[in-house]
Amino acid sequence: MAHILTLTLNPALDLTVRLPHLEPGAVNRSETLLTHAAGKGVNVAQVLADLGHHLSVGGFLGAANPEAFDALIARRGFGDAFIRVPGETRSNIKIAEQDGRVTDINAPGPLVSERAQKDLLKMIASIGPEFDAVVVAGSLPRGVSAQWFQAMLQQLKDLGLKVALDTSGEALRAGLLAGPWLVKPNTEELAEVLGNPTDAINQLHQQGVEHVVVSDGAAGVTWYSSGATLHATPPKVEVASTVGAGDSLLAGMLHGLLSGDTPEHTLRRATAIAAMAVTQIGFGIGDDAQLARLESGVQIRTLTEQ
Amino acid sequence: MAHILTLTLNPALDLTVRLPHLEPGAVNRSETLLTHAAGKGVNVAQVLADLGHHLSVGGFLGAANPEAFDALIARRGFGDAFIRVPGETRSNIKIAEQDGRVTDINAPGPLVSERAQKDLLKMIASIGPEFDAVVVAGSLPRGVSAQWFQAMLQQLKDLGLKVALDTSGEALRAGLLAGPWLVKPNTEELAEVLGNPTDAINQLHQQGVEHVVVSDGAAGVTWYSSGATLHATPPKVEVASTVGAGDSLLAGMLHGLLSGDTPEHTLRRATAIAAMAVTQIGFGIGDDAQLARLESGVQIRTLTEQ
Repeated sequence: MAHILTLTLNPALDLTVRLPHLEPGAVNRSETLLTHAAGKGVNVAQVLADLGHHLSVGGFLGAANPEAFDALIARRGFGDAFIRVPGETRSNIKIAEQDGRVTDINAPGPLVSERAQKDLLKMIASIGPEFDAVVVAGSLPRGVSAQWFQAMLQQLKDLGLKVALDTSGEALRAGLLAGPWLVKPNTEELAEVLGNPTDAINQLHQQGVEHVVVSDGAAGVTWYSSGATLHATPPKVEVASTVGAGDSLLAGMLHGLLSGDTPEHTLRRATAIAAMAVTQIGFGIGDDAQLARLESGVQIRTLTEQ
Repeated sequence: MAHILTLTLNPALDLTVRLPHLEPGAVNRSETLLTHAAGKGVNVAQVLADLGHHLSVGGFLGAANPEAFDALIARRGFGDAFIRVPGETRSNIKIAEQDGRVTDINAPGPLVSERAQKDLLKMIASIGPEFDAVVVAGSLPRGVSAQWFQAMLQQLKDLGLKVALDTSGEALRAGLLAGPWLVKPNTEELAEVLGNPTDAINQLHQQGVEHVVVSDGAAGVTWYSSGATLHATPPKVEVASTVGAGDSLLAGMLHGLLSGDTPEHTLRRATAIAAMAVTQIGFGIGDDAQLARLESGVQIRTLTEQ
């Protein structure tokens, strides 16, 4: 099992409210309000832990409301590599109605000072060598530039870590210049940053990116590596919530690659783990039999071979 | 200045989100998300503190998310009489749009055990005699019966405290049987519990309730005491938010009564403090000159004299 660090520079506290029907302008009574520590890297860490790996989670955390993160870290036995910054970690409110409609309200996060950014680089220099791989996932918080982000990724790479990147927009554009080991954009994120897909993939491989994993929702996943291009179509499942599906895919890919699985099995299982997330309100691997059934329902095609 | 305890058995963490326009089913970006400790008794305490009194705040507080309450208590120098119970204090989400529309989503609070209820009664027995008056305000949490609530009010009364009660429904019905010193229902709350207003007032006075303060929004306040019945009409103000207006009225009434003010001045100032709350997004007394202007705009009529 591998030692993996996930970095979430802009984590979020997810407040999920369930109610029969949202009536704007009225007093609505919700049945439940669940608070949980979230953010792409934090989600990826939980799925990787379900798969048996040793995890540390880090990034920037608002010092005013760390409880949900502290509790998760303690419960899962994660290493704590978060730099505490003044202010509150942003809250994302998810209002889930009985008919499946979800309304998101995303608040801004804390401003991250240069001092805190230096502290994170110091932390990375100190603990980085303990890990086999690092996942850097999610958006940039206020105060953090794309240039700094690129330099951080370069530092991680220079420490000999396999760097997996999952972000979008300017952060993805800058991050790709550092030549990460693996990137996992979805179709729109890739198009937004690099334009034409075929050119994009060639350019990425030239920049030293070994694995480009492009997710396209129910249409499946395409994995471009220097060895081959594989496509996976997931089995049809009933959608409970797509929250954490992309993070589950990324965790599954890392698991296969770090465990030395065959490419075909790596992609098959990663796609099944993502499909499993879609069938849940949350995500994670609770039911091995269900995962096996989903795996057998994944269709893998080889698009090109070298 | 008086020593006053406020008890909020079911406090709430108010999460106020501001955004230009709420679009259900979409990802909305909010400009701010403010978290603050709330609940009727907690609100009343803040206004009474603004008026110069010494306050303690108590009730039941979820142990999992006490931070906003701890911070308020420390900042305002309140005494802490909260019993911590397992679970989270309920969160009330307020979504405020640019056009003034507010959508509330209220979540259920923690279940309060018999053990915690006994602890609160012990606390009251221990610290009760230190206070001149107690405000008991808001709804009952899950696990607390109306009978227990009535017994708690009786205990407070037996300790020689002036008991001011602000609640509704079954809790109000049971609470009135304990014969509190003052009650502050609004028109609907009173009608729901006691039916015909004139009969209701007579019945309350017979039960030993000295002061019945009935609020009716912009139409004003009627104060039935054994001495006289007074009515106050507030000045017309621009409504920013009615949050905390009823709590401000209650605080103003207590202030006048405990300070030995004339009935006319007591009601005039209390009505002005409530009007002031309406002009603010929050509530509280920040601007003495504005309060004086509002006071002079309140119209007082004597309805009956004895």
